[in-house]
Amino acid sequence: MNIKSNTILLAWCCAFSTLLPHTVTAGDSPVPPVPNGITLPEGYQDWPVIASSHRIDNNTSRVILGNAIAIEAARAGNTNPWPDGAILGKMVWKDATLKAWEKAVVPGAFVHAEFMVKDANKWAATGGWGFARWKGMDQTPYGKDASFVQECFGCHTPVKDNDYVFTHPAKFPR
Amino acid sequence: MNIKSNTILLAWCCAFSTLLPHTVTAGDSPVPPVPNGITLPEGYQDWPVIASSHRIDNNTSRVILGNAIAIEAARAGNTNPWPDGAILGKMVWKDATLKAWEKAVVPGAFVHAEFMVKDANKWAATGGWGFARWKGMDQTPYGKDASFVQECFGCHTPVKDNDYVFTHPAKFPR
Repeated sequence: MNIKSNTILLAWCCAFSTLLPHTVTAGDSPVPPVPNGITLPEGYQDWPVIASSHRIDNNTSRVILGNAIAIEAARAGNTNPWPDGAILGKMVWKDATLKAWEKAVVPGAFVHAEFMVKDANKWAATGGWGFARWKGMDQTPYGKDASFVQECFGCHTPVKDNDYVFTHPAKFPR
Repeated sequence: MNIKSNTILLAWCCAFSTLLPHTVTAGDSPVPPVPNGITLPEGYQDWPVIASSHRIDNNTSRVILGNAIAIEAARAGNTNPWPDGAILGKMVWKDATLKAWEKAVVPGAFVHAEFMVKDANKWAATGGWGFARWKGMDQTPYGKDASFVQECFGCHTPVKDNDYVFTHPAKFPR
């Protein structure tokens, strides 16, 4: 390949990189996957709401989000079982008090983001759900090895009859 | 126009109505506007989250959502003042208890959806915000006449230094 054909190739590459939208793949993410291989869902911060929860036993505020498949299922009441492809994301913050309204408990420091990924076949050993958690604002993967999911699954087993999910979708006018 | 040209026109209309995505305009909505003319924002149920709030004085669970302009401002910390075009939506539910985890307070019956619409010029008399509320699952407009906003504005005046907004955006990893 001579200099001229290299120049043409470079021009083509530049043209395409300008035309194509910037896509972020798992490989681009600075956040490592958890030990069972689940990668952090891109853009989860802007997923719609399924419900909220205020845990008064450990003083944490939670908002439960869903990807498009989960939201469609939640709005339609199709959640027992949840469909394959549904991802639930639970955002957890330490409780804080709103200075301007002291009887309002609001999100303070960010604790972690937890996810349940539904694939009835792939995750059959844990109720059809793949579990994942990233801790803190720097999103450190949780778990020393893939056995960490036993802790998650053990806690969710009491809600087996609700497809292992604690959350019930909040009522929204449609 | 004869029968043949009518048939052709009908065929064209059918073709276009199939090709075009279904769009919902304010005119299609069965929900009336509030007395100051603000119409219910379409699709607000699926807006991303800005924060949550558990009011322990009146036992209500709240999630605060935002339209695209509000979310961009919230994520960037550009909220004092919020930019024109931002809309904040506060979803309010009566508290309920999760049967499977009794120390979790979760959304029960839906109370109302409240909105603050930022337009510094249009709503200059009420801090640059247009206020609106629709009650219940049937989304009944709140307020007998346009003066209802004085009740909203009066309550928000103590947070004038935060651009009349109680909510502080929750921290999310980016």
